[in-house]
Amino acid sequence: MSKVTCDMAMSVDGFVAGLNQSYDNPFGEGVGDDLHRWMFDEPEAHAAVIEKITAAGAFIMGRNMFTPGRGAWDLGWTGWWGEEPPYHAPVFVLTHHEREPVKLAGGTTFHFVTDGIESALAQARAAAGDADVAIAGGAHTVNQYLAAGLIDELRLHVAPMLLGRGERLFEGVGRVDLERVGVASGTDLVTHLTYRRARQAGR
Amino acid sequence: MSKVTCDMAMSVDGFVAGLNQSYDNPFGEGVGDDLHRWMFDEPEAHAAVIEKITAAGAFIMGRNMFTPGRGAWDLGWTGWWGEEPPYHAPVFVLTHHEREPVKLAGGTTFHFVTDGIESALAQARAAAGDADVAIAGGAHTVNQYLAAGLIDELRLHVAPMLLGRGERLFEGVGRVDLERVGVASGTDLVTHLTYRRARQAGR
Repeated sequence: MSKVTCDMAMSVDGFVAGLNQSYDNPFGEGVGDDLHRWMFDEPEAHAAVIEKITAAGAFIMGRNMFTPGRGAWDLGWTGWWGEEPPYHAPVFVLTHHEREPVKLAGGTTFHFVTDGIESALAQARAAAGDADVAIAGGAHTVNQYLAAGLIDELRLHVAPMLLGRGERLFEGVGRVDLERVGVASGTDLVTHLTYRRARQAGR
Repeated sequence: MSKVTCDMAMSVDGFVAGLNQSYDNPFGEGVGDDLHRWMFDEPEAHAAVIEKITAAGAFIMGRNMFTPGRGAWDLGWTGWWGEEPPYHAPVFVLTHHEREPVKLAGGTTFHFVTDGIESALAQARAAAGDADVAIAGGAHTVNQYLAAGLIDELRLHVAPMLLGRGERLFEGVGRVDLERVGVASGTDLVTHLTYRRARQAGR
């Protein structure tokens, strides 16, 4: 059965991006690609992990992951990822501003959803068919889905650093009992931890 | 060479205790022994980890780890741990209120330090000799030592849960680059992660 997954690169202190995301600092100030260095520097060592990140049949992201812009759309902006984004699947972007879909090469089409996270998930499930749906980020979007109990499998990629400030994963999510899936793996640059929601009710 | 270590049991979202610690809730409200279940339920599986936690030659803890009391001392209170605490070594308790040392069975003596974290560390180093000094907790005390750059080895014992609220590890510590020590280990109840301060300066 297909599931809802979420992969997040985070610091040991639970930040997934810096503050003040902008065109020049897509991951926020002071972060650069520090949290994702393992992906860029050691793709072969993490090939299985990376393959799972992009294996979903549909993706959901917050608007702030799609663009550094705010307010009305700049229709010339088609995402950070160039002409052929790595998703190769429908991507549903949560926003308050309507926009026509943006179809790019390689099977990626960005759809803009203005009626909330549950609607986006229903649309993504329909698009994914038997494949998984991935909540791609950022922190605010993931936290909303976690708080609503809608993420089945949470895959954390923990980089060896404290950031001290930034966009915090788990903010506002509350108490959730988890179960470990498999064993931790990784290299000096990252520790991969996988959890799923525990089957018994939270205490 | 002896080092300064710190073992902390924490939730995936970085809490090491609940709020409102009291005599009835030594780990704060809503937490019970959830973060330490691995220690109590599976001591044999984690024997090597547990042995390292208590191997230090001296310990430092915040007053709130020693007692649920606040303000002037209740001199009848000699800690949570009964007549023979598990430390078997000098324990330096950070407090604003002077008190004579409390000597218990098995080699544990509680010393009360009123002139700050660096004084406590100097006294603990002197007491430990060639052995390590352990910062035992709680969050506020550990965060002060982390922020001051005084912890050499940080051993996190991550329980599979989000707590959502409580005493947060790493609060106010800022940016710190870490190096992974060894590989992650553990069971379904906990993942053990060990880090040390990176040798190069923070970026």
